Amino acid sequence: MQSRLDEIAKGILASYNEVGGLNNTDRHNLPSKRAMDNLCEQLLQFLFPGFHDERPIHKNDLAIITRERLRALSEQFEDQIAKGLSVSCPDSLLCSASEVLMRFLERLPAVRELLRTDILAAYEGDPAASSNEEIILSYPFLEAIAIQRCAHVLYGECVPLLPRMMTEWAHTRTGIDIHPGAQIGEYFFIDHGTGVVIGETSRIGKRVKLYHGVTLGARSFVKDESGQIVKGGNRHPEVGDRVTIYPNSTILGGETLIGDRSTIGANVFLMQSVPPDSLVVYEEKQLRILNKSKRPASEDIEWFI
Amino acid sequence: MQSRLDEIAKGILASYNEVGGLNNTDRHNLPSKRAMDNLCEQLLQFLFPGFHDERPIHKNDLAIITRERLRALSEQFEDQIAKGLSVSCPDSLLCSASEVLMRFLERLPAVRELLRTDILAAYEGDPAASSNEEIILSYPFLEAIAIQRCAHVLYGECVPLLPRMMTEWAHTRTGIDIHPGAQIGEYFFIDHGTGVVIGETSRIGKRVKLYHGVTLGARSFVKDESGQIVKGGNRHPEVGDRVTIYPNSTILGGETLIGDRSTIGANVFLMQSVPPDSLVVYEEKQLRILNKSKRPASEDIEWFI
Amino acid sequence: MQSRLDEIAKGILASYNEVGGLNNTDRHNLPSKRAMDNLCEQLLQFLFPGFHDERPIHKNDLAIITRERLRALSEQFEDQIAKGLSVSCPDSLLCSASEVLMRFLERLPAVRELLRTDILAAYEGDPAASSNEEIILSYPFLEAIAIQRCAHVLYGECVPLLPRMMTEWAHTRTGIDIHPGAQIGEYFFIDHGTGVVIGETSRIGKRVKLYHGVTLGARSFVKDESGQIVKGGNRHPEVGDRVTIYPNSTILGGETLIGDRSTIGANVFLMQSVPPDSLVVYEEKQLRILNKSKRPASEDIEWFI
Repeated sequence: MQSRLDEIAKGILASYNEVGGLNNTDRHNLPSKRAMDNLCEQLLQFLFPGFHDERPIHKNDLAIITRERLRALSEQFEDQIAKGLSVSCPDSLLCSASEVLMRFLERLPAVRELLRTDILAAYEGDPAASSNEEIILSYPFLEAIAIQRCAHVLYGECVPLLPRMMTEWAHTRTGIDIHPGAQIGEYFFIDHGTGVVIGETSRIGKRVKLYHGVTLGARSFVKDESGQIVKGGNRHPEVGDRVTIYPNSTILGGETLIGDRSTIGANVFLMQSVPPDSLVVYEEKQLRILNKSKRPASEDIEWFI
Repeated sequence: MQSRLDEIAKGILASYNEVGGLNNTDRHNLPSKRAMDNLCEQLLQFLFPGFHDERPIHKNDLAIITRERLRALSEQFEDQIAKGLSVSCPDSLLCSASEVLMRFLERLPAVRELLRTDILAAYEGDPAASSNEEIILSYPFLEAIAIQRCAHVLYGECVPLLPRMMTEWAHTRTGIDIHPGAQIGEYFFIDHGTGVVIGETSRIGKRVKLYHGVTLGARSFVKDESGQIVKGGNRHPEVGDRVTIYPNSTILGGETLIGDRSTIGANVFLMQSVPPDSLVVYEEKQLRILNKSKRPASEDIEWFI
Repeated sequence: MQSRLDEIAKGILASYNEVGGLNNTDRHNLPSKRAMDNLCEQLLQFLFPGFHDERPIHKNDLAIITRERLRALSEQFEDQIAKGLSVSCPDSLLCSASEVLMRFLERLPAVRELLRTDILAAYEGDPAASSNEEIILSYPFLEAIAIQRCAHVLYGECVPLLPRMMTEWAHTRTGIDIHPGAQIGEYFFIDHGTGVVIGETSRIGKRVKLYHGVTLGARSFVKDESGQIVKGGNRHPEVGDRVTIYPNSTILGGETLIGDRSTIGANVFLMQSVPPDSLVVYEEKQLRILNKSKRPASEDIEWFI
């Protein structure tokens, strides 16, 4: 058995060498998935002190704990930013890791102000929500939007891997996949959330409410002369203020604009713009309601239809 | 850099003070998210001894281990219940934490009996299921319904935060979001499960089978004179006995009743009641099947449509 | 309180005895959920050295680390395979645990070659992907397909519980539920992924691209004389080469064949075969776009429709 294991090790080592692009051993500067996961947890603790801790934090200790957490967060974040820059930044003089870090941290109070509006939107938008505390303790969208709003700050910096790793951490935990590039206005709320996808170039207005399973996606990709997809470009919809989109609707296209105050029904597939104050649904008469007991029964089949 | 960090700490501390409702430092009695997550794991170990453990449990040790687990569970649960009561209960004399705990624990054998019917329903309802053991070891719906049936017992008590935190723990792990308030009959089965949402006031009969992505949701919200959504009220559908609902269908409304033995097709958006023995689908002729090769091709675009 | 706890322990112990099929104490050989979760993490580390580690691995250390990891993986995997065989294999002479393990490990270089094509497919198929490293670090589908391709190797062996536990580990992390039995060609890509379900007998060609929420599911189940569902049989669709399926579409049935190079739109429910080069969508005119402001308003209701 040992000799077979040796052979297998040889085979897999050969595969590491032969099959390019799969390993990380000669790229010492890639950010670490585990370190980024850990940083996301620390960020949530920092943004909502007491809620993500084992035990509550006393008011008198808050200043000391906050400074201590900021110091620990900074140290580890700077390390990952340095790795991110080494992969992506052509000119590391322009983008020093500590400079990127400071720009990021200095935006956190503003991020926190936005999150306050999101919590209020959840409370106003969900009859089942009984308090702000319940929303912070048990609404998955809040974790997703907190991490995305932080990642969006980093999105403008020269470290594209880091914000993507952050939003994927939230995606794993919540089923909500918001690209760091998406621009999202204040008082945003996603109820339930599982299966929501918001693409990189989406622009979302104020007081927008989405249900689970809603997609703001790309419709078509521009290709270059060699047939390769052109990266970048405006590919995802724009959603106006005070729009509500019901579960599992799919809206595609960079030219698609959903006008202010519109309501999109559930399970709609939409690839065109709609004016303000629209209501979009399928015709009800398309639904067939048949009586199963009047159909010829087949003994050995549990028919679906 | 240290002075900039000091400034940032000041800014975030100011934000803790200015932006209300975001922190937990002066509310010492909120339940702990981590403690509740841990309790959910312990509950599953307690309900399915041996399945969630590192190693199997010998029959002869079961009584001792069970008593020991019950003791540990009780101690930690009572602590969280006391915190929950301090937030929500106007009269802590009526609701002592130990009394709430006992009422909860005394219902667990009945919960376990219901879960046995759910396992049988999964075995009968899924041709891919090869044994009850496979269902306990690898079907996510079982974790979700086990936690929800426990949370539903607590739902009647004066601790609304706790059951919500429990079902969110299961939601994170399974993608299945069942509100603690939902009333669910025996022999319940959800296949795959990701994206299922079952709202607070849903009533589900016996032998109901759902596929992933099914929503039982609210249609409209009653508002009071000041324009605020009225909390509570019957907002979600009622589903009769032996109903099957295929993937990604969305059923909304507190007045919507799905009659016994009905079948709802996939991707349906339904907001009306249907009588017993109904089959609900969209008309097939609405589907357009076009030949792409006969469309005028555009060289530089990978058209979706 | 102690006497009530004693009563509760008695009640739950009675329930362990009375309610069959719920506990594991007299089946000492069931595989362990935690051990399998741990093995899945080790597998990903082994397949993508450096990416799932705390710190990068130096090229010079790769051979030693790989052999060491293989040894540790083998030891633990053989233990679980032995348990799996004891549950499912009628003839343990034909299927020795170490033999099953070796057959599995010897296939890993080929699995790794397939995963290389999947990474390339993601890079080519997603304009938001900026590098192969980004895909390995932050695309959930890669974890799901890596684990499924490993589980598929074990699917042919006499240990059905193990591959199911592996794909459920990936399902929990990614929301992507691919049965170990599904046959999936090279250059496979799932974007976003949450809510994807691919059933046991699905057959998927080369260069297929799915979006989140796509289902390849069963349509109807054959029952035997006693009314029990017959296990096994071809129940799920076949998907040809170079097919793209947009979000949240549900395709059902073992007879359903999606011809090569076809495109299926979003939110489609399809239960029939379509020829090569098809484009499948609902008629656009079925969509109603109404002006909400022209509807009679009801003061106290926030209408959905």
